[in-house]
Amino acid sequence: MEKKERKIMVAVDESQESMYALSWCITNLISDTTTTNNNNPTYNKLVLLYVRPPSAFYSLDAAGYVFSTDVIDAMEKYSIQLANSVMERAEATCRNLNATNIKMERVVGIGDAKNVICSAVKKLQADTLVMGSHGYGFFKRALLGSVSDHCAKNAKCPVVIVKQP
Amino acid sequence: MEKKERKIMVAVDESQESMYALSWCITNLISDTTTTNNNNPTYNKLVLLYVRPPSAFYSLDAAGYVFSTDVIDAMEKYSIQLANSVMERAEATCRNLNATNIKMERVVGIGDAKNVICSAVKKLQADTLVMGSHGYGFFKRALLGSVSDHCAKNAKCPVVIVKQP
Repeated sequence: MEKKERKIMVAVDESQESMYALSWCITNLISDTTTTNNNNPTYNKLVLLYVRPPSAFYSLDAAGYVFSTDVIDAMEKYSIQLANSVMERAEATCRNLNATNIKMERVVGIGDAKNVICSAVKKLQADTLVMGSHGYGFFKRALLGSVSDHCAKNAKCPVVIVKQP
Repeated sequence: MEKKERKIMVAVDESQESMYALSWCITNLISDTTTTNNNNPTYNKLVLLYVRPPSAFYSLDAAGYVFSTDVIDAMEKYSIQLANSVMERAEATCRNLNATNIKMERVVGIGDAKNVICSAVKKLQADTLVMGSHGYGFFKRALLGSVSDHCAKNAKCPVVIVKQP
């Protein structure tokens, strides 16, 4: 533990469960900005990670027609707005728990959530990853496996899976 | 968060990885015996859970012959000694991290690890479960699924999966 900064990454999305995971993280992992352990103060840094689907995902509709550039632009804009609104909700969650003095960083990734989360852990050298347990709905999960399953197996750091009670 | 005591359960076994998970837990989740959050002091209690296989597991050898009572007794004795030695290693790990003032409890369960762990979480009302990511070897995992996978899905509390780097 020679590292002085501890980077805690929380994967946030539109779900209530991911906000619950964030609250759990603040209450249980980051109770103070500094944790004194063996006389070495450790500074916590909270990284909020949101993953939005790739634009290409939107370029064909169900019937296979190519959308016009206008539609793609509008969807792209919507996706960016969604990312911002999730980040704002996350920051409001932090404020509600009086966690205003935590060093915070917003990161938005684009792509398949489970791959983006695992590679963000590696790239940003997160010390802990916190996420909700959901992922997809029942059928999609049966087909694709849940995001949290994949990350628990593949992320290169301890992973906390938080289920909403 | 009206609860004043926070119960953190760590599933320990013979593996190095489970001792690493325990160290992670002490360093990251239980840095102090009391965590001050919103002016409500929370007392941490560490529950060390070890699961040993059921005795019936030993009552037939590979060829199907029934062991003599002496052999069963000897194996039972060995299994109890193993449980004690794991618990002692776990407590030594705590001492090495200067975590001597944590309230601690030893719990030994008997049965299939994944089911025993999940039911212990429920029965003892653990607030967080911490465990290593391994479980079984490659083939057994492919057949039975890993213990940590099962617990991450089924335990009724946040689950931390710690991989040894």
